[in-house]
Amino acid sequence: MTSIPTKKIDSYIKSIKPDFEEMLARMVEIPTISNDPNRRQDIERGADLAVEYLVSIGAKAEKVTTRGNPVVYGQIMAGKDDPTIAVYNHLDVQPALEPGWKQEPFKLQKIEGRYIGRGATDDKGPALSILLASRFAAENRIPVNIKFIWEFEEEIGSPHFEEFLLKKKKEIDADSILVSDTIWLSRGRPAISYAVRGLVGARVILKTGMQDAHSGLTGGAARNPLGEICQIISSCYDAKTGMVLIPGFYDDVRPYSKEEFASVLESGFDVKRFKRAHNLISMRTRDRAEAIKRIWFSPTFEPHGIVGGYSGDGIKTVVPPYAEAKISMRLVPDQDTRKIFRLFSGFVKKINPDCSIIREGMLDPYYCRPEGPYPDAAKRAVYLGFGREAAFVREGGSIGAVSKMQKHLGVPIILLGLSLPEHAYHGPNEYFDWGQASGGIRTFIRYLEEVSVIGA
Amino acid sequence: MTSIPTKKIDSYIKSIKPDFEEMLARMVEIPTISNDPNRRQDIERGADLAVEYLVSIGAKAEKVTTRGNPVVYGQIMAGKDDPTIAVYNHLDVQPALEPGWKQEPFKLQKIEGRYIGRGATDDKGPALSILLASRFAAENRIPVNIKFIWEFEEEIGSPHFEEFLLKKKKEIDADSILVSDTIWLSRGRPAISYAVRGLVGARVILKTGMQDAHSGLTGGAARNPLGEICQIISSCYDAKTGMVLIPGFYDDVRPYSKEEFASVLESGFDVKRFKRAHNLISMRTRDRAEAIKRIWFSPTFEPHGIVGGYSGDGIKTVVPPYAEAKISMRLVPDQDTRKIFRLFSGFVKKINPDCSIIREGMLDPYYCRPEGPYPDAAKRAVYLGFGREAAFVREGGSIGAVSKMQKHLGVPIILLGLSLPEHAYHGPNEYFDWGQASGGIRTFIRYLEEVSVIGA
Repeated sequence: MTSIPTKKIDSYIKSIKPDFEEMLARMVEIPTISNDPNRRQDIERGADLAVEYLVSIGAKAEKVTTRGNPVVYGQIMAGKDDPTIAVYNHLDVQPALEPGWKQEPFKLQKIEGRYIGRGATDDKGPALSILLASRFAAENRIPVNIKFIWEFEEEIGSPHFEEFLLKKKKEIDADSILVSDTIWLSRGRPAISYAVRGLVGARVILKTGMQDAHSGLTGGAARNPLGEICQIISSCYDAKTGMVLIPGFYDDVRPYSKEEFASVLESGFDVKRFKRAHNLISMRTRDRAEAIKRIWFSPTFEPHGIVGGYSGDGIKTVVPPYAEAKISMRLVPDQDTRKIFRLFSGFVKKINPDCSIIREGMLDPYYCRPEGPYPDAAKRAVYLGFGREAAFVREGGSIGAVSKMQKHLGVPIILLGLSLPEHAYHGPNEYFDWGQASGGIRTFIRYLEEVSVIGA
Repeated sequence: MTSIPTKKIDSYIKSIKPDFEEMLARMVEIPTISNDPNRRQDIERGADLAVEYLVSIGAKAEKVTTRGNPVVYGQIMAGKDDPTIAVYNHLDVQPALEPGWKQEPFKLQKIEGRYIGRGATDDKGPALSILLASRFAAENRIPVNIKFIWEFEEEIGSPHFEEFLLKKKKEIDADSILVSDTIWLSRGRPAISYAVRGLVGARVILKTGMQDAHSGLTGGAARNPLGEICQIISSCYDAKTGMVLIPGFYDDVRPYSKEEFASVLESGFDVKRFKRAHNLISMRTRDRAEAIKRIWFSPTFEPHGIVGGYSGDGIKTVVPPYAEAKISMRLVPDQDTRKIFRLFSGFVKKINPDCSIIREGMLDPYYCRPEGPYPDAAKRAVYLGFGREAAFVREGGSIGAVSKMQKHLGVPIILLGLSLPEHAYHGPNEYFDWGQASGGIRTFIRYLEEVSVIGA
């Protein structure tokens, strides 16, 4: 199904390497940190640069305003009867406060084919790879319309992305969607994700006093909100096994076939490499199948922090007046975020009626069968792009935009990421590299070529 | 047994009010904060002032050095065949970092008979009350030898007090000890404590990773040390009821008779007042007898803080690499601190072998039957001093020095405090007042008179 000579693509890629590097440097140098309200002007500058880049490759582009950050929307039209693909990336980034940074995070450093800086791999580098593949498609008249959707609120759970979709869904009118914001299992093993976990976040707050009380004078009679918060958490899940104990929690987990699991099991997931990549000292399991089930096929309950009481050196014998647990649950298809939040809060309230429970974000899980013309096309494109077979895998993290696009656009979504575990997603010294960028551009050119003939 | 005319005592007390106020002001103005290593020089200045005060009433006095802070030791000798009483107070104080302070904490303010400043009631005011009672005793030739023990490490658990006792026990050679560092139930109800809770502190640390992990990418397979710490705490005690679940924990709790409990029940303890005094919103019980059992007759388990993970606004979906619980247990007579620490750490290690457990201070509980010549004398002295019957009560807090003196000096100890619940022990705007000081001086004069004839 592909007709453009490999040589032509390769020489294009070689020629645009300096462009890629300069464009990425300019992008990384704008600190588009979405969780910091003081960065609102940087977000606008980042969006302006995105529009400039789209226009520079011949696209029509605009900043679409929402009640939150803008979404940059662009399009390159081939012909109105040609297939249409929407491509999604996000250009906002995490903060870069980690003490491990060895350089200024918002100044791109190029060292031995690595591009180091916050956002380089998540998700500015992949976004530029698609952009430069699209430039090639336009210049070589691949008959496909490309609609660019560049979000600036992905790192905060996409709170205004639906507003954008409702405004533009008619205009987008795509036959399929390509998302590049996921991570391979290892450099040698490309991965296409067909399922994404969702998320329900919450804070549980318990207030039993007005100030620190003396644990000698009051201890025994005074309630201890920290102890009660621990009891709530321990009632919600067994931290040793990870098993969630909230009644009904697992009811809607989508069953999977032996074949589906067997295929994912062949993805090349390696427990030792996983452990090393994430700096874990010990894990709940050392078994590969069990680990895969846990991160991709099972929902979780996770405390992220417990606030309240004394946190300095040594101990201080106070009975604290309040405590707060910061928790979240990752959900798998077909769990429903609202139902799970209802089950959770009902259960907690039953255990401890004095708590207040505050919802902190909800992202639906996503699932798409890894079969059919688009997954097949992606697989072929990856093979041509990287010379290796892609594995179909699930995604442990959550991408809020994916389930929202599924809901409002209702077309197949292919999750074809370029990031590697060692790229330090959300970590210090995040980087992207030319190997992944050049292979990515090659893959995306082939994929655009592929989708231009699907249904034709 | 008392012979000095009341009028004479009252006119003495009236005459020394300006002295008391000036002496207290000078004492409060030295910030003898024992938990701050930078205050070491202030501790020395405080000890020098204490020596000066003792010498000013005719005592021999010295700073006794230890590997920690000094202990000021003084004596006024009546005659070598006269009975000897040791009087204990501490002159170190808590920090004063509470946001609620309405004034400079280390500048004594006098407002309507109140003396406001850090340490005014805990324990500088009571120490001066005994000092001025002793001056009267010396001037009026009450035949009792008085040995002053002024500690500067009480607020940090008296880590070097035994060193002092071992140096000076032969010299002290007392027949009884008077400690003034406890709190009445209310202004109208003097209290003499005959039992004090002990303390075992600990930190439980669990490390399962080297840095924050992404709860999407790793959640389910990665261990969550915060969740496991919650599980440890919930296994150690039922936070709702306060019941400790560590096997053997209650084995050595001293049984008490109906009569003992009935007598304490008549102490005037009031649940509503207690709740208000300690700023509690809700308590584990509203029943008076049950509350008394909980704070005076029962040991506790208490988490004071849980460190690890995210503690900012909202939530952040990390799997933290480590967690630490700061906990303590208050012990009652006849629980043994070493045995309890052993039971606790064995139990925790069994639940979670990967934890480390660090001991953070141990104070033995103390018990002395509230009957016999010294308790009887104290009761009569309080009646003469304040015109009200004293109640014999237990103490929920811990005074490290008390059990150490019991061990090394082996004589009856009377805990005759002057502080009131509203004096804000360890809190903002701590104060002492002339009502308690003058009644206290009167009481102590009568008590010195009483003990001068015990065994004579």
